[in-house]
Amino acid sequence: MDAIDVIVTKRDGRELSTAQIDWVIDAYTRGVVADEQMSALAMAILLNGMTRREIAEWTAAMIRSGNRMDWSALPGRTTDKHSTGGVGDKITLPLAPLVAACGGYVPQLSGRGLGHTGGTLDKLESIPGWRASLSNAEMLDVLGKSGAVICAAGDGLAPADKKLYALRDVTGTVEAIPLIASSIMSKKIAEGTGALVLDVKVGSGAFMKTPERARELATTMVELGTDAGVTTVALLTAMDRPLGLAVGNALEVTESVEVLAGGGPADVVELTVRLAREMLDAAGLGGDKDPAEALKDGSAMDVWRRMISAQGGDPDAPLPVAAETTQVLAPASGVLATLDAYGVGLAAWRLGAGRERKEDPVSFGAGITLHAKPGDEVREGQPLMTLHADDAARFERALAALEGAYTVGETADPGLLPLVVDRVTA
Amino acid sequence: MDAIDVIVTKRDGRELSTAQIDWVIDAYTRGVVADEQMSALAMAILLNGMTRREIAEWTAAMIRSGNRMDWSALPGRTTDKHSTGGVGDKITLPLAPLVAACGGYVPQLSGRGLGHTGGTLDKLESIPGWRASLSNAEMLDVLGKSGAVICAAGDGLAPADKKLYALRDVTGTVEAIPLIASSIMSKKIAEGTGALVLDVKVGSGAFMKTPERARELATTMVELGTDAGVTTVALLTAMDRPLGLAVGNALEVTESVEVLAGGGPADVVELTVRLAREMLDAAGLGGDKDPAEALKDGSAMDVWRRMISAQGGDPDAPLPVAAETTQVLAPASGVLATLDAYGVGLAAWRLGAGRERKEDPVSFGAGITLHAKPGDEVREGQPLMTLHADDAARFERALAALEGAYTVGETADPGLLPLVVDRVTA
Repeated sequence: MDAIDVIVTKRDGRELSTAQIDWVIDAYTRGVVADEQMSALAMAILLNGMTRREIAEWTAAMIRSGNRMDWSALPGRTTDKHSTGGVGDKITLPLAPLVAACGGYVPQLSGRGLGHTGGTLDKLESIPGWRASLSNAEMLDVLGKSGAVICAAGDGLAPADKKLYALRDVTGTVEAIPLIASSIMSKKIAEGTGALVLDVKVGSGAFMKTPERARELATTMVELGTDAGVTTVALLTAMDRPLGLAVGNALEVTESVEVLAGGGPADVVELTVRLAREMLDAAGLGGDKDPAEALKDGSAMDVWRRMISAQGGDPDAPLPVAAETTQVLAPASGVLATLDAYGVGLAAWRLGAGRERKEDPVSFGAGITLHAKPGDEVREGQPLMTLHADDAARFERALAALEGAYTVGETADPGLLPLVVDRVTA
Repeated sequence: MDAIDVIVTKRDGRELSTAQIDWVIDAYTRGVVADEQMSALAMAILLNGMTRREIAEWTAAMIRSGNRMDWSALPGRTTDKHSTGGVGDKITLPLAPLVAACGGYVPQLSGRGLGHTGGTLDKLESIPGWRASLSNAEMLDVLGKSGAVICAAGDGLAPADKKLYALRDVTGTVEAIPLIASSIMSKKIAEGTGALVLDVKVGSGAFMKTPERARELATTMVELGTDAGVTTVALLTAMDRPLGLAVGNALEVTESVEVLAGGGPADVVELTVRLAREMLDAAGLGGDKDPAEALKDGSAMDVWRRMISAQGGDPDAPLPVAAETTQVLAPASGVLATLDAYGVGLAAWRLGAGRERKEDPVSFGAGITLHAKPGDEVREGQPLMTLHADDAARFERALAALEGAYTVGETADPGLLPLVVDRVTA
């Protein structure tokens, strides 16, 4: 067995054997298969595809490259959510404590932002004192005490995926559905959750631009989870416009706390409650307490405060604020017809909310506050959004990203996606 | 412009722009584009193809990565040949002096063997004292004195190709016709020859297994040469069985000297003369002296002796001989129906005639002497071939490679290719 044999098999459109998959993942993790060999294989997978069996075995091999976590010491059932990433997607922040308040245990291993989509850990790190890195013992402790934990995945979790993800990022091979699905699911299955709800974003601000592609990815991941014994459900949700009214790290924490306090934008509340119900149902916990109730009665907020405190954060500390702001004004009176998620995400990234390279820092205060969403009436000259940055020099390129990203008309664009586009189950 | 932009363009089936091609070749040569990015691009090119314009610009960019040689100081016209490589293909050895004897100047930059096909430089290095590495001044000197020079390409010739070739070799991307064609033609155009004849091998022992693939490669290369102002012609020739009766470094030198002495196997003589006429015609030198004549009258042999001596070799020295031999006997009486070039090439490689890694040495004496070719009558128990190796331990794996590689029947296999399958011109 050698790398060329595996590459040529997939290059020529044939199915990889179990032995080939096991060997290549293990050899790549150990450095025996070189980066330039794995990237050629990744491109061949992207262009020639993989069967359901190949994807399942590829995922299993990536899980075996590291440790699998075990939550059997907890007194209740675990349930988790994964989002494929979008603009203004802070749902994990209110969702994890909400589900815990309703009786589930939520072991959320999250990531950092790269490109125009934000990362959950970057958002939480804007809370003074909060730590993303926990040992397994600390994770179990936070989870036992508060019912939810959001933290970084340790190095021992699917190290093959970590290495392969970094490689795909620089070789134009991110967009392969078998590789996206196996990357996400290897981490979620290794994380040891008993139930999983996938939030597959669709639209300009998501990796999947069309419902068809999103459905393909969702189906692949639901199959993978089911085959691995994890009850898995996927929702396809709208990412043609941003989610909520805040885009940026500290700005999104503030909006999440508003939701936990019983307020917040309607779309964020609706999606949080919907996903909470799916997570509880998938874990067989539906009926104990309704999530909409737990947002009103303060029980979800109590879990949030315990969870943030347990990881060293001060839930009452003021959050970082950007030094400079500028406003984008409505060019005409009428109804905001479109607000392109990608344009807004790119602008927030350029303001400093995201990073260009993995080693870059993010600005916690930078981002965008939206004052109108598609369908809202606007008046010429009224502020449509406020841009926040640590340095006013960043405004020019952010404003350029917003050119053409919003339109005012007579009605909202009838092509806008419903908030929940579809639901995929095994 | 960045690497991902170029990779994604080709991955998504679009045409690369001139600026993208120029940038990526230059940036790869300078190490700005990483190996893992270039291998992903190479796989996308292999699977999605390239247009004639893209291949021409890719080739031109590789030529510009280094120096272009200049033979205008010579008193006559230059003409060269390139073979895509086969088993027992020693044609360059008698051909270069033969063409020089008929009035052409032949500046042959050759390579080493890798895998089951032999390399011209490895063969010549079996001659005691002979040196493959010459400076440009030495090349011009040997060429001026003898009319032909066969030597290694210097580091300054298409360095982008050198780097890319080594990468393709380990990433399963050797078989892409645009990359094969541009690799060969960038070196031959940079070599500065005025006319070029391509010997594109077809069959089990060649890279191109079918006449269709060989014709596609030949057409692509003829177009590239023509576009670059080099008169270019291609012959498709048989490589379903070995060429001649000797396979291995010193064994092939001996056979080449027999041809230069007016003898040698009929197929080697026929192909040498045919290619010599094509080279002379392409350079506008046809008619001065007939190549068949120059083999008979000793003038080609005179050039050979001058050329070998000028590079430090002793044309009269005894050549290395392998310590051990064993014979393969005919299993039945009848006619040798088939003799698979790949099987024989693989066996010779395993005997030590070729190398597994670029840094490995070759055995000069190792190889195979054939005692029958397809169509020849054989008698049960008569020797079909003699295997030569420095170590008898090598025979077992070589014999395994020969299993099923020859059959005895009533007639030669009617599916055998004619020696010259086709001719491709602009």
